[in-house]
Amino acid sequence: MRQPVELAHASRLINHGPTVLVSSAFGGRSNLMAAAWSMPVEFTPPRVAVVIDKSTFTRELVAASGCFAINIPGRALADLSFTVGSVSGREVDKFQRYAVPHFAGPVLGLPLVEGCVAWMECRLIPEPHTQDAYDTCFAEVVSAQADARVFAGGKWFFTDDNTELHTLHHLGRGHFAWPARSVQARLLP
Amino acid sequence: MRQPVELAHASRLINHGPTVLVSSAFGGRSNLMAAAWSMPVEFTPPRVAVVIDKSTFTRELVAASGCFAINIPGRALADLSFTVGSVSGREVDKFQRYAVPHFAGPVLGLPLVEGCVAWMECRLIPEPHTQDAYDTCFAEVVSAQADARVFAGGKWFFTDDNTELHTLHHLGRGHFAWPARSVQARLLP
Repeated sequence: MRQPVELAHASRLINHGPTVLVSSAFGGRSNLMAAAWSMPVEFTPPRVAVVIDKSTFTRELVAASGCFAINIPGRALADLSFTVGSVSGREVDKFQRYAVPHFAGPVLGLPLVEGCVAWMECRLIPEPHTQDAYDTCFAEVVSAQADARVFAGGKWFFTDDNTELHTLHHLGRGHFAWPARSVQARLLP
Repeated sequence: MRQPVELAHASRLINHGPTVLVSSAFGGRSNLMAAAWSMPVEFTPPRVAVVIDKSTFTRELVAASGCFAINIPGRALADLSFTVGSVSGREVDKFQRYAVPHFAGPVLGLPLVEGCVAWMECRLIPEPHTQDAYDTCFAEVVSAQADARVFAGGKWFFTDDNTELHTLHHLGRGHFAWPARSVQARLLP
């Protein structure tokens, strides 16, 4: 059910603040970490910011490769998301240890996590100061895909029929809320 | 039910990606805008990043005053959140026009929106390049408060008994998801 998402709609994938999994690869090694701190910063060109702590192995791989991918896990991947956010990839290959199925991203060939509900490949925009001072990595989205059962036409459709595909929103210590309900707001007169 | 939140817990208030209302004031004028794009960037000192477009009146007030506040609306304020995100404050005083009740922030005296479920006052950290290139404003949180019916001891408690206080997560065009359900993840072996 994986479908391309127009790059003009990429910001919608993380507009509502889901926890994401950052995947990266360089020189035969790869890694996967959880990141609760990400946001879009621009619609066109589609740009995002993600906080990747400078102590992480992911940060090393991103610095070396100049790219990373954002995978958006659904509720079915809550345990995996918590786990890869709690273990460092420096000593252990998390893809292997947790038998994470993955496929190659269409533009950069980055490892994307099978079973997630959306994916973006991103090229790092080098900003040494903000990377250093705030661990904030700006990047341009160069490919976007989503599971059409839950995101189509630039919109998320969270219903009672697809709760396993609802995104995860980290409240702390492995406790994730998910967007089980929604409301259509109206403009005040 | 407003209670102080330890600054060490401030990041938790937006860790799960809610839409926020940014309030600002300078020289007798004030404003309120919605921002879907914000995130924590550091626990200690507590720092956040918020995207505030350079075309907005809020951005002018923030540049002049060097500060802004983050108000986190609950579901009961969905219409107000959508509305203040759709109207510019340059020509109209949104606090007045929409009769938004507010109170003064404890450290900076910024107007905070009554009826929200959490509040943070923030001092802008001047970063001309990222403000210009990415409309991204870094800031340090200098006060934090929350409605104890939904956030206490550094944790959100979203239950069926307080759904009006659940945070809003913008899916687009005034459609907001809210965290009606949650799951406690387990570490994989």
